Amino acid sequence: MPFILETVVSTMGLNGEIRFAPMGVEWTPPILIVRPYRDTATCRNLHARRQGVVNITDNVLTFARTALSREPVPWVRATSVSGGILADACAAYEVEVVEVLPSEPRETFRCRIVCSRQYRPFLGFNRARHAVIEATIAATRLPWLPPAQVRAELDRCGALVDKTGGEQEREALALIRRHVESRLDAHQGPGDG
Amino acid sequence: MPFILETVVSTMGLNGEIRFAPMGVEWTPPILIVRPYRDTATCRNLHARRQGVVNITDNVLTFARTALSREPVPWVRATSVSGGILADACAAYEVEVVEVLPSEPRETFRCRIVCSRQYRPFLGFNRARHAVIEATIAATRLPWLPPAQVRAELDRCGALVDKTGGEQEREALALIRRHVESRLDAHQGPGDG
Repeated sequence: MPFILETVVSTMGLNGEIRFAPMGVEWTPPILIVRPYRDTATCRNLHARRQGVVNITDNVLTFARTALSREPVPWVRATSVSGGILADACAAYEVEVVEVLPSEPRETFRCRIVCSRQYRPFLGFNRARHAVIEATIAATRLPWLPPAQVRAELDRCGALVDKTGGEQEREALALIRRHVESRLDAHQGPGDG
Repeated sequence: MPFILETVVSTMGLNGEIRFAPMGVEWTPPILIVRPYRDTATCRNLHARRQGVVNITDNVLTFARTALSREPVPWVRATSVSGGILADACAAYEVEVVEVLPSEPRETFRCRIVCSRQYRPFLGFNRARHAVIEATIAATRLPWLPPAQVRAELDRCGALVDKTGGEQEREALALIRRHVESRLDAHQGPGDG
């Protein structure tokens, strides 16, 4: 029964390029298990450098941005490993890979925390913030899910954002909606509509 | 656009009886706005003593217990006000009422934080934990919602608990399911089935 925490994992390519990717991480400190899909920059970077940073933040706009857009997010360099700490992190765990377990379709990296940083309290449960997380996940599954199902999930989440969210959550949901609609438009050729 | 944090509010009756109730609180420190339904112990206690504690916790079993069962939860007395601090609080805000705005069906208590306590970090986003919050909310709405809709929400939330939750989240969902089924059984006379 692994407990999965939703984090933003950052890694660095051999060329120095930073990558932030939202990811569910198996949470059993001091070991964290990171499982990126194989054909991703995060997976390649973890193989290449065997280091990264697991960021905890309650800023859901950062989740939506790193999942769906190429918009940069503010960050600073980690000190013990190659990777980036989100400027808006509540906490950041600098990790190194101790074991790679081959698995499909996600690679399994068992990581050890080498430096643990606490910046500010995670605020607490807010229905809108979690709705943004769920909406982001639905949007990333657009290639596999029926469009109507994704739109229904966005409507469900949007109602919670309207009811309990602030500016940041509204902005995040707007970003997700724009992403979904632009993808659906792009995939809808003449005659498909 | 009020930002609503899901908290566990504790108040004390004039007879010294403690009450814990999960509640969405409008979060604009140093003012927190608590809006209990009028016909509840929390509302009566806030009128009577004009004090309470807003607890922040990531223990979702506490949300489910205080919402749906009369099972006691471990707590200690607050020091600046009448009220209880959850033993498993991440943070607790002792508050006093500065203004009561009459409103229906919920009373509006504008409260000022008089003592702020930080105990341990709130862990972060976990889909199972939020699913338990949503399932708890659905269960409390059983008197107004069609049973099929509540069961569907419990199934949706249960899938997330199975996928991303630990023991505490499973136990909370089991409690919610037992509560819902026992209420539905109680309201289902002979011939209704």
